[in-house]
Amino acid sequence: MTTLLTETLARIRPIDPRWIERARARQLQLTKPAGSLGRLEDVANRMAAIQETLAPAADRAVIVLFAADHGVCAEGVNPYPQAVTAQMVANYLRGGAGINALARVAAVDLRVVDAGVAHDIPETAGLTQRAIARGTANFCQGPAMSPEQAVAALELGIEMSEAGAHLLGIGEMGIANTTSAAAITAALTGLDPTSVAGRGAGADDACMVRKRAALARALDLHGPHLRGPLEVLARLGGFEIGAMAGVCLGGAANRRAVVVDGFISTAAAALAVRLCPAAADYLIPAHRSTEPGHAPLLEIIGHRPLLDLEMRLGEGTGAALAIPVIRAAVAAFTGMATFQSADVSEAS
Amino acid sequence: MTTLLTETLARIRPIDPRWIERARARQLQLTKPAGSLGRLEDVANRMAAIQETLAPAADRAVIVLFAADHGVCAEGVNPYPQAVTAQMVANYLRGGAGINALARVAAVDLRVVDAGVAHDIPETAGLTQRAIARGTANFCQGPAMSPEQAVAALELGIEMSEAGAHLLGIGEMGIANTTSAAAITAALTGLDPTSVAGRGAGADDACMVRKRAALARALDLHGPHLRGPLEVLARLGGFEIGAMAGVCLGGAANRRAVVVDGFISTAAAALAVRLCPAAADYLIPAHRSTEPGHAPLLEIIGHRPLLDLEMRLGEGTGAALAIPVIRAAVAAFTGMATFQSADVSEAS
Repeated sequence: MTTLLTETLARIRPIDPRWIERARARQLQLTKPAGSLGRLEDVANRMAAIQETLAPAADRAVIVLFAADHGVCAEGVNPYPQAVTAQMVANYLRGGAGINALARVAAVDLRVVDAGVAHDIPETAGLTQRAIARGTANFCQGPAMSPEQAVAALELGIEMSEAGAHLLGIGEMGIANTTSAAAITAALTGLDPTSVAGRGAGADDACMVRKRAALARALDLHGPHLRGPLEVLARLGGFEIGAMAGVCLGGAANRRAVVVDGFISTAAAALAVRLCPAAADYLIPAHRSTEPGHAPLLEIIGHRPLLDLEMRLGEGTGAALAIPVIRAAVAAFTGMATFQSADVSEAS
Repeated sequence: MTTLLTETLARIRPIDPRWIERARARQLQLTKPAGSLGRLEDVANRMAAIQETLAPAADRAVIVLFAADHGVCAEGVNPYPQAVTAQMVANYLRGGAGINALARVAAVDLRVVDAGVAHDIPETAGLTQRAIARGTANFCQGPAMSPEQAVAALELGIEMSEAGAHLLGIGEMGIANTTSAAAITAALTGLDPTSVAGRGAGADDACMVRKRAALARALDLHGPHLRGPLEVLARLGGFEIGAMAGVCLGGAANRRAVVVDGFISTAAAALAVRLCPAAADYLIPAHRSTEPGHAPLLEIIGHRPLLDLEMRLGEGTGAALAIPVIRAAVAAFTGMATFQSADVSEAS
């Protein structure tokens, strides 16, 4: 049976290494010492290969911010009440959150999507309302969601990836979702779940004891059933995590780079890569989060983050900082003169 | 006798730590987990303290790019001919270099200043012509410049720092100037000059042998006479390096943050800090260069760079990438809602 998900997975192709070679040859003609723009050159070369042109574009960028709630919040794993998810969505819609400020200053569009928030959202103008359910179930007691809901979350993300942008970013909000991301990390990597649990939004020591205990119980309960990434998402995930994985897949299918934010976004990106390894070619990790589970997830993606600013806010804030770097990489690649055109002597 | 230099040095004051405390208190009210914006919070707090307001601005940014030639080029320390300095200045004026592309995409103004280029510059529209001499003397044979020229270079930078900007950036172009920066690094830190010599624009092994030999001879010749930063600049520096140090001093005197680019810019910033330690409070290192001498210079500045993108181009390209990060830090600090104004519950 063809579904949006299976059709999307079937369309994803690895990037063509000949485009990387063409871009590298172009870089050598530009008026700078060979390789002197460092990682900017790698980013530009990949953008060229993703878009299959020596004139890649990064002007129109959209960050899709998915919000959803998590049943595991009931285990006391987080210092904030669950109602903060809905309160912060209202804050995004009024433009008062960190991601609003960072997206504005970077000239990046922001789309806010309710993928499954538990509480009423006070203000809804500008919200894309696509809640799959009013939060997931508590994965310490059973699967977080049904297999059908997991597919629905992925397909929501695939749909949202059709944003008419040169560059997609992903971000999230969901009280307790670092616990879900840590569980996914443990499931995908085989690492002890307690070793990949960090303080998230600021868990104190008592909170961390409960978080580690919840993770250990969840992995004991679900471990024998985790036969693939779809089951990992259904049993341990969140709706926003599934949707972000969907953006990664949809972006890859449509040859668009996807800028991955921090720990939770990278858990989503890692699920996407496990569903379709070629999707990794389209992913650009934005920044290194302070969460301990982030590094092993980045190994699954296979790319290093561009930035390390000791951030741990989520929302797509890291993506909003990385997008100007990617635009700069593309601007240098497409806007610089060549040694020949500028009549500059080359190195001997 | 009061000169522009002595008057500027006398005006520089350390930032007031009470402004840092006020900014920190404000950060805790904003709708994000405490500390979750990481180094962006530190940057915003310092911008508040520099400008002495909880509404700091970073909109108008200017990068001042100084070009000058170096007598030590005659020692064969660089793979490019000396004429490339003038050729690249023409490239800046036509908008074809890396810094042009990066400044454009970041909406940063660029000023190009001839501080002492040896060759004729083919095209001069837009150039600020302030050459102190047609290049320095070869410091393997004597001082690079006279003490009066060193003061003139510093005062050129102080004048150029009056750019009407919220944020100043410094950049440079000068064939062989990594050799001068390495000599300054050795003089300021006491490190062996050959240990701080890197490949610069791409020196091959034969070039590196000559570069290390030139550095060893220069430090042997001048070492006994290096009694202070002014003598280090005069004997081992370049006109663009002195001018960039002047921007650091002028920025600090006028309470403006100065974004320091890479290795050569940081050599200039380190000279400024040795001339006036309080100037360090106003400096924001943009990025970590791949040059081996950069790290010991950063220790003199006392601040970590914001970015590490394995770049080694100079021109102010690192500053052009860091300025959007600083603007983002300021935008979050000044543009975010508070827990109270947004009616978001705080952590328990």
